[in-house]
Amino acid sequence: MSAHWTLAKRAHKMNPSVIREILKVTEKPGIISFAGGLPSPRTFPVQAFASACDAVLKTDGAAALQYAASEGLPALREWIAGQLPWDVSPDQVLITTGSQQGLDLVAKVLIDEGSTVLVETPTYLGALQAFTPMEPKIVSVDSDDEGIDVADLAKKAPGARFLYVLPNFQNPTGRTMSEARRQALVDAAQAAGLPVIEDNPYGDLWFDQPPPKPLTARNPEGCIYLGSFSKVLAPGLRLGYVVAPKAIMPKLLQAKQAADLHSPTFNQRMVAEVLKDGFIDRHVPTIRALYKHQCEVMLDALKKDMAGLDVQWNSPVGGMFLWARLPEGVDAVDLLPKAVDKGVAFVPGAAFYADQGDPRTMRLSFVTASEEQIRIGIQALADAIREAVKG
Amino acid sequence: MSAHWTLAKRAHKMNPSVIREILKVTEKPGIISFAGGLPSPRTFPVQAFASACDAVLKTDGAAALQYAASEGLPALREWIAGQLPWDVSPDQVLITTGSQQGLDLVAKVLIDEGSTVLVETPTYLGALQAFTPMEPKIVSVDSDDEGIDVADLAKKAPGARFLYVLPNFQNPTGRTMSEARRQALVDAAQAAGLPVIEDNPYGDLWFDQPPPKPLTARNPEGCIYLGSFSKVLAPGLRLGYVVAPKAIMPKLLQAKQAADLHSPTFNQRMVAEVLKDGFIDRHVPTIRALYKHQCEVMLDALKKDMAGLDVQWNSPVGGMFLWARLPEGVDAVDLLPKAVDKGVAFVPGAAFYADQGDPRTMRLSFVTASEEQIRIGIQALADAIREAVKG
Repeated sequence: MSAHWTLAKRAHKMNPSVIREILKVTEKPGIISFAGGLPSPRTFPVQAFASACDAVLKTDGAAALQYAASEGLPALREWIAGQLPWDVSPDQVLITTGSQQGLDLVAKVLIDEGSTVLVETPTYLGALQAFTPMEPKIVSVDSDDEGIDVADLAKKAPGARFLYVLPNFQNPTGRTMSEARRQALVDAAQAAGLPVIEDNPYGDLWFDQPPPKPLTARNPEGCIYLGSFSKVLAPGLRLGYVVAPKAIMPKLLQAKQAADLHSPTFNQRMVAEVLKDGFIDRHVPTIRALYKHQCEVMLDALKKDMAGLDVQWNSPVGGMFLWARLPEGVDAVDLLPKAVDKGVAFVPGAAFYADQGDPRTMRLSFVTASEEQIRIGIQALADAIREAVKG
Repeated sequence: MSAHWTLAKRAHKMNPSVIREILKVTEKPGIISFAGGLPSPRTFPVQAFASACDAVLKTDGAAALQYAASEGLPALREWIAGQLPWDVSPDQVLITTGSQQGLDLVAKVLIDEGSTVLVETPTYLGALQAFTPMEPKIVSVDSDDEGIDVADLAKKAPGARFLYVLPNFQNPTGRTMSEARRQALVDAAQAAGLPVIEDNPYGDLWFDQPPPKPLTARNPEGCIYLGSFSKVLAPGLRLGYVVAPKAIMPKLLQAKQAADLHSPTFNQRMVAEVLKDGFIDRHVPTIRALYKHQCEVMLDALKKDMAGLDVQWNSPVGGMFLWARLPEGVDAVDLLPKAVDKGVAFVPGAAFYADQGDPRTMRLSFVTASEEQIRIGIQALADAIREAVKG
């Protein structure tokens, strides 16, 4: 008899990401991609990492290559606690294998089968993927250009396990919550006793001024905060962190230990070494300047090339993405293969909705492609849209 | 109103590891520890890693620091597939963040609440921790000095989701399954249609001759195989792998993507670089020789110092651990603080049983402590046992 493999119920709910499959097509050489969420490799501090590797292996190679505590490297936890704009003890900081793992741990610790989890409309696809295996009922809260609609939140909050929200330069829309909206959201969540999971991978990537302070800074006992080194140093090291109320931390830690024992010791030491002496304060402004410029180039190109087409887009004040809406009757999923034929790729917005999405939306990344590629790519995209409109 | 945090049901089942708490005590400076499962740092190829870091950052720094595919680095998957002693396609290899993550992914994909999962008696604690959050019913199969009792397995197999087994130099016991036992186990599993999860982190650490071929080599469609670079290169990089039947791989991959997107690109490239030119074939024999010698030192010390005490132990033919049994009436959990007072630590065997364990058992690692520490530590342990026997 051959082995009788029985998949868990949750495995049937994990779908092959449609996007992932679509995007495979876009990885053909020569395609200009606005699709991926890849930071610009020009921003990776390769030389700083090379020096850090050298220093770490020379001074303490054996410890850097050994097993280590599940909580993470004390020096790194202290650095993180110290730079957050509210009172955080290093004991509340858990180092994770990318902030994606933070979402996995939160899901394991807070979601039962059938639990209601509230998300923005649209929301980060990776969060939907992390939550789904724990079989929640995911409910979209109405959202506008500033994110969560607080009145709709108040209506949907009763009984929900938590709200997941990405207030700064959101993935996928690039939108940012205003000061007033943040406070209103925190007040509404507090009134309802609703825990908030705040994801902030892009917060440092502001163009002209920092975004308003995090939700967690306003109510640390009511929030879990997720951060990442992927966008300010490099994603290939897979280092992120969770900041949680002291009462929740032991369970997150147990889940972390069961998931991968600990995040790579070597990577943690390398990053701690790079962070010494204020490196990040010199480095991050260069990323901000680059991304701001690239965003401007894309906005200019859109203005020029989409003229006469009924295409709308927003103007992000930071981050990596902007959000566009196609003319009536043009579906982004249908448009994608045509755009790829013309040499340009994007992600159809439908991928980012927990329920039925707006088929006319798309996410455009302005950070991975070069300035010249952005100009050529937007022109190609406009051509594809023009043909689609003609039908 | 303060936030109303509701923990998932599974979170209540995740226990603070008693062992972990006990072992914190043993981390006091000056304690000789036979407790941890830490490879000897003397075996870490620090210089090879330093050269690899340098090469990787110089030749392809940007790619090494960027996001990458969830499956893992093609060159690494090919290397792994190529060195396994059965016909494996690189498509069947998934790179994981340590082999602990392989256990987490297997649990997510194959365990429903209440599913029966079969394990050895005793079994690897980390597997129990990885399976528990998915809320299985964990059932111990009777085991002897060679591992799984095949008759008991046949009795317990019907309806079970899988058997988890660690055939080589098992953690915690150090025992190894014979050729005959392996074949009998595979035959029994096939007869029952029972999938097998084979964990093989220690298989390369044989002393005099390689262990019999893996269970998976005998029935690849009926097994998932977990491997690791932690014991042959270094654990601090957190790189392991899962080899699965093609039908199961898509679900493991989806679970992997949701868990941490991918394992660190940089670490994968570093290891692929180190593995070039047959490095591992020169390196691993030095680990084998060291561990064999350290095991002999511990066995000699046990023979000398435990004379006259009714203590029993096995003689592993590879790996990192041996298994000892205390005199009647001496409980290893009670003994531990007394041993620590005398300057030596171990792990009480009870930690490794899915159900009621044998309180007289203990796990002793012979690889982390030095030769001199092993002699001193075993003497101290004998003193502690002598006093406990006198009561």
